[in-house]
Amino acid sequence: MESGTPGGSGPAEPGPRLRGLGGALQAAWASLLSGAQAQAQAEGGCCAPAVAAVLPAGGSGERMGVPTPKQFCPILERPLISYTLQALERVRWIKDIVVAVTGGNMEAMKGIIQRYQHKRISLVEAGVTRHRSIFNGLKALAESQPNSRLSRPEVVIIHDAVRPFVEEDVLLKVVTAAKEHGAAGAIRPLVSTVISPSSDGCLDHSLDRTKHRASEMPQAFLFDVIYEAYQQCSDYDLEFGTECLQLALKYCHVKAKLVEGSPDLWKVTYKRDLYAAESIIKERISQQMCVVMDTKEDEEHVGRCLEEMLKNELNHVKVMSGRDLQQVILEQCYNFVCVNVMTSDFEKTQKLLNVLDESNLSILYPVVVISVHFLDNKSIPFGRKMEDLMQIKELAREVKKRNILLCGLLIYYPQVIESAKGRAFVKISDPESMGRLTLF
Amino acid sequence: MESGTPGGSGPAEPGPRLRGLGGALQAAWASLLSGAQAQAQAEGGCCAPAVAAVLPAGGSGERMGVPTPKQFCPILERPLISYTLQALERVRWIKDIVVAVTGGNMEAMKGIIQRYQHKRISLVEAGVTRHRSIFNGLKALAESQPNSRLSRPEVVIIHDAVRPFVEEDVLLKVVTAAKEHGAAGAIRPLVSTVISPSSDGCLDHSLDRTKHRASEMPQAFLFDVIYEAYQQCSDYDLEFGTECLQLALKYCHVKAKLVEGSPDLWKVTYKRDLYAAESIIKERISQQMCVVMDTKEDEEHVGRCLEEMLKNELNHVKVMSGRDLQQVILEQCYNFVCVNVMTSDFEKTQKLLNVLDESNLSILYPVVVISVHFLDNKSIPFGRKMEDLMQIKELAREVKKRNILLCGLLIYYPQVIESAKGRAFVKISDPESMGRLTLF
Repeated sequence: MESGTPGGSGPAEPGPRLRGLGGALQAAWASLLSGAQAQAQAEGGCCAPAVAAVLPAGGSGERMGVPTPKQFCPILERPLISYTLQALERVRWIKDIVVAVTGGNMEAMKGIIQRYQHKRISLVEAGVTRHRSIFNGLKALAESQPNSRLSRPEVVIIHDAVRPFVEEDVLLKVVTAAKEHGAAGAIRPLVSTVISPSSDGCLDHSLDRTKHRASEMPQAFLFDVIYEAYQQCSDYDLEFGTECLQLALKYCHVKAKLVEGSPDLWKVTYKRDLYAAESIIKERISQQMCVVMDTKEDEEHVGRCLEEMLKNELNHVKVMSGRDLQQVILEQCYNFVCVNVMTSDFEKTQKLLNVLDESNLSILYPVVVISVHFLDNKSIPFGRKMEDLMQIKELAREVKKRNILLCGLLIYYPQVIESAKGRAFVKISDPESMGRLTLF
Repeated sequence: MESGTPGGSGPAEPGPRLRGLGGALQAAWASLLSGAQAQAQAEGGCCAPAVAAVLPAGGSGERMGVPTPKQFCPILERPLISYTLQALERVRWIKDIVVAVTGGNMEAMKGIIQRYQHKRISLVEAGVTRHRSIFNGLKALAESQPNSRLSRPEVVIIHDAVRPFVEEDVLLKVVTAAKEHGAAGAIRPLVSTVISPSSDGCLDHSLDRTKHRASEMPQAFLFDVIYEAYQQCSDYDLEFGTECLQLALKYCHVKAKLVEGSPDLWKVTYKRDLYAAESIIKERISQQMCVVMDTKEDEEHVGRCLEEMLKNELNHVKVMSGRDLQQVILEQCYNFVCVNVMTSDFEKTQKLLNVLDESNLSILYPVVVISVHFLDNKSIPFGRKMEDLMQIKELAREVKKRNILLCGLLIYYPQVIESAKGRAFVKISDPESMGRLTLF
């Protein structure tokens, strides 16, 4: 078994996304926390609730119609599984995340963990079926290995590598329900009617849609329940079964609690799902923008105009001077407009790029920086200034390697400076950033 | 009932997409055709096989989370239902297409038919449920109204307004199977396991995925079978039923033939499905490009360089002079690069825009035109030429109203003309076209 860096032993508390949840969930959380603490204390363990996650990622993705297994397909150049890992890591009370990958993908997976700086991940070898992969993950959690820092959890979450949009609230709901019922899983209404064919390829009967649900992920189990079920179950179950909840029912007589999930829980299965995932991610990261500018009067006026215009298009627009950049970066803003009035140098842009480099923000998503230059062609010949500004092309090529997409936007005033009527030229420093340039 | 323009009475023959199909389907088609012809002749009718389609489009789209019913949601500014109608219209042997829409959407639907020049469409009022809408569509086909040009078909296809990617081959398969079995429908493997909950919200049992299928659309029926089933069925069926195949089984004892469909048949249900549909359409229309240029030597060299570069990115690239434009437009190319060497006027671009205007091509999808201008700043001052070229901004604003997205690309050579090393400036004439500019 390959070990990543296990998580810290700090107090388990809900992540930022949980703070907005309603009272019932807060109570559920308190109960989960206190129960786990009580048990942990009784066992002489630490006070963190023992929740781990197992992520089977050994699939071949044959339905996708592409040679790469779907969990490794890139979305905005980053593998799908990395988004799912990020979604689980964000939940601080999940202590360990065990990922089952095939031997052939083990090195690639280690590369992903390193590149995107994932934490609390352990890798195990996948089995030939999904159930065997999950079983391998559970074994790693159950059996204390000499070099392993994993320990047997009280509750284990089972999730899919190809469901990247799982939120903390549904994870909490299934964990809380599993603690009470022994097993729990997310469900969704059926989109299509389900039918049963006869052996001659004709309709035998159709199922009542109101009496059936689609079983989705995440699911959660008392560890002892699901581990016992996997130890008891037949080879046939391990080869052809699909439903972990069914194993808990069949071998441990535990009736899983069903929890309504959100539409976001859908499984990336076909090529169209990759398109959808990419659009969802783009929408999320493109709705926040930071305008960086000096507080000199001229420039501030331009900045405020820009802010007003952008607010019609985006959910979150912030205008600030270069001094407060660290805070914006902590809030995970991925889009910057850097305003330079009447100058053709890149001092301010360069400063922003340095801060971005130090932050490692661009490891997760591409960061877009638009360097805006206002020019009056009366002072220096236009062509000459243009030549100076061309250096941004080199700069763009350089920072592209670090996933920062730099664009130069030149606002050219042949006669009078009028911010609203300026005629704009854009130099394509990086064609890939053009998609997000549409807000101009 | 509102009548559109019914289809012509020309000989029914497979559309272009059918010509590539295998021998078995060709035979099926021949059989379908001859059977229908024989019956039509026996009845003294014309020789076209009597196939019609009913499209229930009265849904509210509540799962989408947006106020517009999903069938009217725009994809690239065109309503989803218009794509589905186009897919059905393309199939020349479907004689009539009856669309059921609510009274409140009747005018909007008429507007869509007019704007996108849909043919062979008749509108009926939708019922409060999907089944009632379908029944209304069937009634319109069954009963000869004084002002209606609809006639009772032999086979009726039922399809969803929100499945825009249906292909002729699957339509033919269900129609052929319906002729033989009385009813037929497309199916797909289940993506998620289906479970049955108990009354306390816990798992009662899960269904064997290998023994069940998702019932998708299109479906087809002998008209007499499905019309009889709808006439016989209970109010409960009309209110709460979902499956037409089940009605044929229950009331006419017809066991529908199940036909494997492609992944493309999926139903646009959630917001993410709109994203996916948009990406699929964009991919389809962006893979073909036409480079328009003169045959003068210099220009041709530039054109060939461009062609070579573009062929690395796109499936279909064609280089031609302005004379052969009509042919390209017939082939439904939506992307044009118009090369102007050493000139700042727009003669060639204007000619292309005129041809596009006449063709009505931009009614269905936006057409992108990139007007490329090569300039050596030695001859005339750079700033002055730029001013001239700025007129393209006005031109772009004008043609945008007709769904043509015009972009100016200025290739500027400060010293020597070297096509590969030219420094490029782009004027943003239309920000919405930038997405497809990424190929540069």
